[in-house]
Amino acid sequence: MKTYSLNQLGRYPIYLKLLKEFFDEGVNVVSSPLIAKRLGYSEEQVRKDLQNVASEVGRPKKGREVKQLIEDIETFLGYRDSTSAVIIGVGHLGAALLNFPSFSEMGLEILAGFDTDPKLLWTRVGGKEIFPVAMLKDILPRLNAHIVIIAVPASAAQSVAEQAVASGAKAIWNFAPTHLDLPDNIVVEDVNLASSLAVLSHRLNVALAKEEKK
Amino acid sequence: MKTYSLNQLGRYPIYLKLLKEFFDEGVNVVSSPLIAKRLGYSEEQVRKDLQNVASEVGRPKKGREVKQLIEDIETFLGYRDSTSAVIIGVGHLGAALLNFPSFSEMGLEILAGFDTDPKLLWTRVGGKEIFPVAMLKDILPRLNAHIVIIAVPASAAQSVAEQAVASGAKAIWNFAPTHLDLPDNIVVEDVNLASSLAVLSHRLNVALAKEEKK
Repeated sequence: MKTYSLNQLGRYPIYLKLLKEFFDEGVNVVSSPLIAKRLGYSEEQVRKDLQNVASEVGRPKKGREVKQLIEDIETFLGYRDSTSAVIIGVGHLGAALLNFPSFSEMGLEILAGFDTDPKLLWTRVGGKEIFPVAMLKDILPRLNAHIVIIAVPASAAQSVAEQAVASGAKAIWNFAPTHLDLPDNIVVEDVNLASSLAVLSHRLNVALAKEEKK
Repeated sequence: MKTYSLNQLGRYPIYLKLLKEFFDEGVNVVSSPLIAKRLGYSEEQVRKDLQNVASEVGRPKKGREVKQLIEDIETFLGYRDSTSAVIIGVGHLGAALLNFPSFSEMGLEILAGFDTDPKLLWTRVGGKEIFPVAMLKDILPRLNAHIVIIAVPASAAQSVAEQAVASGAKAIWNFAPTHLDLPDNIVVEDVNLASSLAVLSHRLNVALAKEEKK
């Protein structure tokens, strides 16, 4: 199986979103230069990325069919096979993720939530039942969910992640602002808001410094 | 002003988190190889990154002072000057962000929220008052907030972002799952959960394929 760089993979959902907008506007055929222009990527980049997933050979000067491209990218990203997940931590962030409407479009089904707060247990959040974290090892194998989403405070994240792995999790989507130390065979993907904010602040400072110079 | 790659900047909050853990454990001096090992980075990478922000020259074989390094990275990231922001969209995600305890540690102060839902207006969420989006152009300049956080549904994001820019926003932190088309002088940083999930799913598929082969 070919592996892809994080930057490369991350572009496909962005292509997909744009292609769906084109489709909704009634655009049936699209060219790499047009996509490149709309997204601020280089034409070569877009051409390569699309070639990589397209089931049909692109016809120079004719462009590609929008509908077919959407299908090809969805297949490539696995959106057409749904992946099951559970979430640990049903505070504000966990509840937001349980209520996030776009995950099912992306092929992610969150089946259940886990928390330690007695007020939350056995209630439903975003339509999903909330179980005690202590039941993870009984419930996770039965749900056949490979992905565990971690949305607990940083201080609890490592311990909860270890419980998830001991219960059979193969992949951790980590929203806690901390580094997780887990076995090498476990896939860990961090949603690091601190890093994203650092990038934003730095770019803002550069932009403000430029303005002052003018 | 030197500019940094997104990957490079994104590592500093991760160093910071680890250094604070060391500090809490009573570790006073730390070496690049130790940090590299804990985070899975190369030693050379860590050495370069730390040299880049450290106010003191590193002493080979002696390591660096943890406390000083924490201060240096916080200064570099701008965590010591707080940055003001407002948030547009106070649904589940917006409420989660308004209640996120770590932003103030990162130097981000969210001053107010904006929404169109009459039930939310003039209430407080996470201690912050919620105003009508229509008042953005009156309130944003008075708050002197440069950053606007967008947490509305994808379909509303472009229009809301344009209103933010027209009201004086210099930077947009975009949590809506869509591409924003804004003037070049506006800093846009996307928190793209779809991309993060695509990376996770792909890496999980690779890992599962490897397991099957065994």
